[in-house]
Amino acid sequence: AAPGWERDGDAIVRTVELADFRAAMDFVNRVAGLAEAADHHPDITIRWNKVTLTLSTHSAGGLTRKDFDLARSIDAR
Amino acid sequence: AAPGWERDGDAIVRTVELADFRAAMDFVNRVAGLAEAADHHPDITIRWNKVTLTLSTHSAGGLTRKDFDLARSIDAR
Repeated sequence: AAPGWERDGDAIVRTVELADFRAAMDFVNRVAGLAEAADHHPDITIRWNKVTLTLSTHSAGGLTRKDFDLARSIDAR
Repeated sequence: AAPGWERDGDAIVRTVELADFRAAMDFVNRVAGLAEAADHHPDITIRWNKVTLTLSTHSAGGLTRKDFDLARSIDAR
């Protein structure tokens, strides 16, 4: 349903590797813009050049269409 | 040594709660600027309005002065 994303319990998770910390922050800021536009926010972990995104719909207790829609818009960045 | 930070194994950790996701991203971008200036980068996790920072000096296998110096400059933001 969302290539590049892995199922982890009630969430889908993707780790993206960038060139360096600055590139990772640029990516995170683009994701943040998409998240604000969608009013749906992944958990985001930054480890220097690696960014892990975790999507789940906590209010629904699991995965919903909002998660897959946001995953697709992040992938299309 | 660094009030507000808790020791977790070979790292010090602090979670800061902001007003919302946008405020959390503003905080993360300020931390990112300090990290680039110090050439020392915490692991950063964003969960909507909560930001967790984890500082350790991986190259030294534990905590060093760089961690406490960056913790202090983050606290002084």
